[in-house]
Amino acid sequence: MPQDDSLCDLSAVELRRQISTGEISPVELLAECHQRIDAVNPALNAVVAENRPAAVAAAQKAEQAVRRGEDLGPLHGLPIGIKDLNETAGLRTTFGSPLYADYVPQQDGAFVATVRAAGGVVAAKTNTPEFGAGANTTNAVYGTTGNPFLPARTCGGSSGGSAVALAAGMLPLAAGSDLGGSLRTPAAYCGVVGLRPTPGLVPMARKEMVWSPLWTEGPMARSVADIALFLEAIAGNDPRDPLSGFAKGADFAGLRPANLKNLRFAVSEDLGFAPVSGQVRALFRDRVARLSSLVACEAADPALEGSDRCFEVLRAVGFLGEKKRLVEQHPDKVGPNVTANVKLGLTFSAADVGEAAAAQTRLYHAFLDFMGDFDALVCPVASVQPFDKTELFPRQIDGRPLPTYISWVAITYGLTLVGHPVLVLPCGLDEEGLPFGLQIVGRRGRDAELLSLGLALEEAFASDATMAPRRPRLDNLA
Amino acid sequence: MPQDDSLCDLSAVELRRQISTGEISPVELLAECHQRIDAVNPALNAVVAENRPAAVAAAQKAEQAVRRGEDLGPLHGLPIGIKDLNETAGLRTTFGSPLYADYVPQQDGAFVATVRAAGGVVAAKTNTPEFGAGANTTNAVYGTTGNPFLPARTCGGSSGGSAVALAAGMLPLAAGSDLGGSLRTPAAYCGVVGLRPTPGLVPMARKEMVWSPLWTEGPMARSVADIALFLEAIAGNDPRDPLSGFAKGADFAGLRPANLKNLRFAVSEDLGFAPVSGQVRALFRDRVARLSSLVACEAADPALEGSDRCFEVLRAVGFLGEKKRLVEQHPDKVGPNVTANVKLGLTFSAADVGEAAAAQTRLYHAFLDFMGDFDALVCPVASVQPFDKTELFPRQIDGRPLPTYISWVAITYGLTLVGHPVLVLPCGLDEEGLPFGLQIVGRRGRDAELLSLGLALEEAFASDATMAPRRPRLDNLA
Repeated sequence: MPQDDSLCDLSAVELRRQISTGEISPVELLAECHQRIDAVNPALNAVVAENRPAAVAAAQKAEQAVRRGEDLGPLHGLPIGIKDLNETAGLRTTFGSPLYADYVPQQDGAFVATVRAAGGVVAAKTNTPEFGAGANTTNAVYGTTGNPFLPARTCGGSSGGSAVALAAGMLPLAAGSDLGGSLRTPAAYCGVVGLRPTPGLVPMARKEMVWSPLWTEGPMARSVADIALFLEAIAGNDPRDPLSGFAKGADFAGLRPANLKNLRFAVSEDLGFAPVSGQVRALFRDRVARLSSLVACEAADPALEGSDRCFEVLRAVGFLGEKKRLVEQHPDKVGPNVTANVKLGLTFSAADVGEAAAAQTRLYHAFLDFMGDFDALVCPVASVQPFDKTELFPRQIDGRPLPTYISWVAITYGLTLVGHPVLVLPCGLDEEGLPFGLQIVGRRGRDAELLSLGLALEEAFASDATMAPRRPRLDNLA
Repeated sequence: MPQDDSLCDLSAVELRRQISTGEISPVELLAECHQRIDAVNPALNAVVAENRPAAVAAAQKAEQAVRRGEDLGPLHGLPIGIKDLNETAGLRTTFGSPLYADYVPQQDGAFVATVRAAGGVVAAKTNTPEFGAGANTTNAVYGTTGNPFLPARTCGGSSGGSAVALAAGMLPLAAGSDLGGSLRTPAAYCGVVGLRPTPGLVPMARKEMVWSPLWTEGPMARSVADIALFLEAIAGNDPRDPLSGFAKGADFAGLRPANLKNLRFAVSEDLGFAPVSGQVRALFRDRVARLSSLVACEAADPALEGSDRCFEVLRAVGFLGEKKRLVEQHPDKVGPNVTANVKLGLTFSAADVGEAAAAQTRLYHAFLDFMGDFDALVCPVASVQPFDKTELFPRQIDGRPLPTYISWVAITYGLTLVGHPVLVLPCGLDEEGLPFGLQIVGRRGRDAELLSLGLALEEAFASDATMAPRRPRLDNLA
């Protein structure tokens, strides 16, 4: 499959430009995405539901709008992948749960409505574990999504379908969401870019705990510039998310790469508390050695001790509010991750919750102080490189058993608790040819500044054979 | 005491203007405040700690800055009352608790630092119940604060000291804070103005549950224009409060009264769920009849059923996070309200918390929908008019027993849960000559619009003998 000839491998920014000039038509672009999906998705199982007639109709409408010279939104004519946790009008939405296997919403969820209002063509649903619970993308409705670099390995989760669709060029932009690393882990495992934004930057009207900063929507793409384009459409204010309102889409237009001179990065192998494998530590040290030639780096760990208990309790409260009734009413139709979380939550008291909330506050303030000394914090995304996709999660790291099924994502959930934006940048491949990724943590509420940093790093990485992001070979998949 | 001749009875806006032109000196103004405090505070017990030499030094510095033609902050030279829950450098800060009876902080809390940075002269601490727990202002350190209209009655709480200091002209501006009505009830009981802002508008770095929208700082004053002036200084962004950042002080400069024509208000006697006395219902109906000649009013209750349980649980979580250890370590030095809250909290499970958080989300979304149909919602502030100050709280309303010690403030805490800004406007007196107040609820995040509404209402009320705000007679107190 000659990647260079396909519109599927152009950036979203370039596609959007060519759409506005009339060089390409949204209909033509969608058709090429359909060809790519048909070619590679059977081997990967990333795209799980489509309504092609509806998508084609939307693309035709977008084409007509260009011809009529109408004002075009930032996503005009671009095919967008929507994670299967977001409701899409007329397009099957399962949440990865057999309980919703045949659910076709009448209306778009708020996020999807925003994407459409910005001109995006809702092209496909992307796979996710049941209700997003789990860092491997597998469920009883659609099965397991494979890593495009090595389809027997996991793509990570829960936004695995979106990451894989991007990496394999099935779609130019795709939406993710992140609680404990759900957007970051798959971005790293598939060699794409993702932003876990400051909570509220991308309004999330569907949260069932409306003031909680844990869950957030987030953009995924193949470059930082494409992330910025996506944010032009989806960042902003929606009263239905009371954490939103501090930024607007226009903040992400016309971003320039930051000047890396005079900046100071903290680099941390494990955030001072997270289990991390020897392989990842070695890869990280190698990347940091190269990064140090670009920007001043100082080894420093934030004070995140206590994050494990804090996250375990606060996460459980969410499951209790949202999923307890479901587990009680349909014990046979709810999977092991969700059931285990509800059961764990039932062992906690309100005092445990109060202590966890107070602990989160202490962690937050300590992290703010830490970030006062640095322009960014850099650490690995995942504690281990992609494992076999038939395993739900790693039970040990380098022979040391892990206490819980989420222990292996401590390096992402520790950053969730402190509410700062985290950009995932792909950074070359490991010895097996699987992608390696970095978390770049920026200042709270300054997501545009973080993207400017990301643009500069991405540019620098591109000229270094070890650091440059890579695409998977598709000829093995087709 | 000839009120008309004292600077103490001018508005903060007018004082600030005269300070900038040099017509009055901050030193002279502070001296008049001291005279007033000396005259009336013994009968009221609103101001509980002062450091007069430090305040005079600050006023002298402010005077010199005017003489040197320096840029002046919005509060330049104005004496400000600080609720005794906020730490003040060099000025005794007790939180109303015997455990802190002799505590003199080395540093200002973040809010107080903001007040000073805006030129405010930290003049006095104002009384509050222990740790702000309770809607009557009484504690074991300083005793009870009286209502300036009838000193045997309660001034409400927990921001009672600030409300009384304003009503009696001891200070032109004073800070409050509000969880379940702590700023609103005393404003109404003392005939002053208060704003419970959209959470985050006024950053609250000292919150012990950093993402919780329940507690908020808020401005108190004698007019809406003075509230706007205060907000110019204290609204804005502070990373230490992750709910902040959606607005800035300048949003409150130069506000104009809204045009009441073509607006539509919902009016609700009891928010559809709160216990409210017959007396308050009658007063409210009378005020609404007059309000209806100014603006289109429609009787409509928001859907707030379930608020009691939701607030009880979420409030308890805060006490568990913050005060459980204190109650365990010093059972003899923690008062009945705080102890009872911690004990109540210990009976709840994490599942109760999860359900309460999910319930809050449902209430929030239902309230947003409700407000979509109206420009504001108007309801009473307090369920009963000011009661005897020796009672901690009313145990019954019109002969019907109340289930908990906070049931009587359901009409304020119901609005806390849904996170919209609430302006308290004084609205004449009752049959006994005690103030009556209205809650005016505006749109989330649009606090400046709400103040514009408030300016228009205040202007209209002033020309109606029944609706006009009144000051207490000070000759009885001195």
